[in-house]
Amino acid sequence: MTLPGPIDPPARLLMGPGPISAYPSVLRAMSAPLVGQYDPFMTQAMAETQQLYREVWATGNDATLLIDGTSRAGIEAAIVSLVRPGDRVLVPVFGRFGHLLAEIAERALAEVHTIETAWGQVFTPSAIEEAIVRVKPTLLALVQGDTSTTMNQPLDEIGAICARHGVLFYSDATASLGGNPFEADAWGLDAATAGLQKCLGGPSGSAPITLSPRAVEVVRSRSRVEAGIREEGDAAASDFVRSNYFDLGMILDYWGPRRLNHHTEATSMLYAARECARVLLGEGRDAVIARHRLAGDAMLAGVEALGLTVFGDVAHKMANVVAVEIPEGVPGDVARAALLDDFGIEIGTSFGPLHGRVWRIGTMGYNARKDAVLTTLAALESVLRRFGAAVPVGGGVEAARDVFAGAPA
Amino acid sequence: MTLPGPIDPPARLLMGPGPISAYPSVLRAMSAPLVGQYDPFMTQAMAETQQLYREVWATGNDATLLIDGTSRAGIEAAIVSLVRPGDRVLVPVFGRFGHLLAEIAERALAEVHTIETAWGQVFTPSAIEEAIVRVKPTLLALVQGDTSTTMNQPLDEIGAICARHGVLFYSDATASLGGNPFEADAWGLDAATAGLQKCLGGPSGSAPITLSPRAVEVVRSRSRVEAGIREEGDAAASDFVRSNYFDLGMILDYWGPRRLNHHTEATSMLYAARECARVLLGEGRDAVIARHRLAGDAMLAGVEALGLTVFGDVAHKMANVVAVEIPEGVPGDVARAALLDDFGIEIGTSFGPLHGRVWRIGTMGYNARKDAVLTTLAALESVLRRFGAAVPVGGGVEAARDVFAGAPA
Repeated sequence: MTLPGPIDPPARLLMGPGPISAYPSVLRAMSAPLVGQYDPFMTQAMAETQQLYREVWATGNDATLLIDGTSRAGIEAAIVSLVRPGDRVLVPVFGRFGHLLAEIAERALAEVHTIETAWGQVFTPSAIEEAIVRVKPTLLALVQGDTSTTMNQPLDEIGAICARHGVLFYSDATASLGGNPFEADAWGLDAATAGLQKCLGGPSGSAPITLSPRAVEVVRSRSRVEAGIREEGDAAASDFVRSNYFDLGMILDYWGPRRLNHHTEATSMLYAARECARVLLGEGRDAVIARHRLAGDAMLAGVEALGLTVFGDVAHKMANVVAVEIPEGVPGDVARAALLDDFGIEIGTSFGPLHGRVWRIGTMGYNARKDAVLTTLAALESVLRRFGAAVPVGGGVEAARDVFAGAPA
Repeated sequence: MTLPGPIDPPARLLMGPGPISAYPSVLRAMSAPLVGQYDPFMTQAMAETQQLYREVWATGNDATLLIDGTSRAGIEAAIVSLVRPGDRVLVPVFGRFGHLLAEIAERALAEVHTIETAWGQVFTPSAIEEAIVRVKPTLLALVQGDTSTTMNQPLDEIGAICARHGVLFYSDATASLGGNPFEADAWGLDAATAGLQKCLGGPSGSAPITLSPRAVEVVRSRSRVEAGIREEGDAAASDFVRSNYFDLGMILDYWGPRRLNHHTEATSMLYAARECARVLLGEGRDAVIARHRLAGDAMLAGVEALGLTVFGDVAHKMANVVAVEIPEGVPGDVARAALLDDFGIEIGTSFGPLHGRVWRIGTMGYNARKDAVLTTLAALESVLRRFGAAVPVGGGVEAARDVFAGAPA
């Protein structure tokens, strides 16, 4: 074969629902040299990363670490380690990723119960409590921000409901963490997972996870040290987790003081995850959330001023992404391709019932910035006009700039 | 908390059993900017990576791709997708990683049968065939290079045996691929997996995998498109794979022409995997294997000339790693720490029965080089002497240099 050249990506401004353009310092971190997995520098970097993510999650959970895989790997690790076959799991579904949690729980042979609301809406706490009372699940699995619909499910009252009914509370915060408030301890989470490729501003491939002491107890009750490194006295529960890679008990032993070998930690992705959190905490967690709120408000004002109809319940939209209906007569995918070809700007469509019906425009991580928002709106205006939509001249950019101008310095 | 600084690893020459120092160009590749997951550049980079790994594996298998996780994720994806609960799996165990394959198959609820040989030995084809005849497995799962013992199990006759008995043949080549011959098609493999962090010279976190058409057929027979993106006519087998993340059917649909969203491909790790293969094929697959052979022979001559006893059946040693018994009276871990502290050189110990009994010294990927070998031997000589071992002055370096000098240019 003729060898391809070194990787040399085109210039792209990633304004879709994620992955988004990484922070430059995160990209630089990944080119740092490797060290051995038990090198004192490595174990220190792992411990630092754990501490950084405790701040990101707003938790005191000792069991705060990374799963070596994409955000979906984090979801599967949480579910397969917390759910025994036959356990009842309740999944409120308000978009594609609710279906995903249900699907992963089904594969773990849970008895899965779902409640659904229309795409573009969220659940009230009482709807969730009613379902808990009816289903009596072991685990509530609830997406925080479902990128497929852009909705942000309020979680702040759910932990207390779960505690009242003795239910473990797990949330997938992949799309929302870092760009919207998340308070693992204050909200009573037992488990939460995320990925780097959204508001954390890194590449896909590492999944931050945090587990409450109660969740760790469940995981520990199913412990099994693998043959080949097992020593006398090591546990071997018959009720073991049906996965080795995602057995959080073994992963905790690898990250914990025993440093018992499991996988070989993905060093470069650890460097990336560490830098994502370092950037976020360096700027300040609240400041980063406020920056996402500002950029999101500006983008919202911009698309509305372009005459686009925003999809879903705007009061419950995530700060970092907005969905707009594709105007009648505009060929959605062709227009997206033009935006990419002519301006190097990527926006997304959605899944299932929303595929081809909405565009999703993100303002996340590094790209939650004024120049990224205004550039995207200017390009979008041009493309919309080219495909025959009636758009006010300069309206989107002006409206967004006004939002930025009105923000406290 | 006080924020730690940017990641800044100490200088390390990683001469253990892996991870090893990555090729500089692989580190550089990871700092390339991200693109969207359906960007034409991204799908092209994925297709190029598939073609590159077909060459690395020596296969025409269309189903050649990456699993987003460490080498262990690749193993689990292969086993959980190919093995139905209750299926018989035969695992010949000649070190720690044989135990791992058995463990992963047990978790997949297979009926696992093992045969064992002493650590430091390999199996004859006839021993494997006898066990196949007795056990009648659906799948033979066999490690090629088990780093725990340094042994390289010959595979060239095993595929024909499996074909004769209608058994699927899977091998884990994590520790061996790129530094030792591997011929997926010529040897009749149905599935093979690896990682980047050994002879391929990259970081842990991406697992190359290849599947024969027969293996794909098994995987496809268990297909299930996930709810949320399922369309009319899509399959939903009741006999589904008990994992979503590792369901090779869905992963094939993501890498294949349908590009059906599964995980979000770990872009930076894809860049790394692509570059690992590009470096290998740019130098030439046979040339890289020969370089590993030469560096391995030199290291072997060097440690023998230092008076160290080599562990195991040297005739069946992998080219890229040697295990030596820790001399009587030398504190193994203290001496290893001195090598790291004083010289920045890492070597490894081993697992289970060999922990604290042997050191493992690797010559892999970028570090399968003369200067890396000679530097390691010089430092090892110094450390051995400091801890009271009787070592001939300069003997190790001289013996290794002679091997390099005698090599054809």
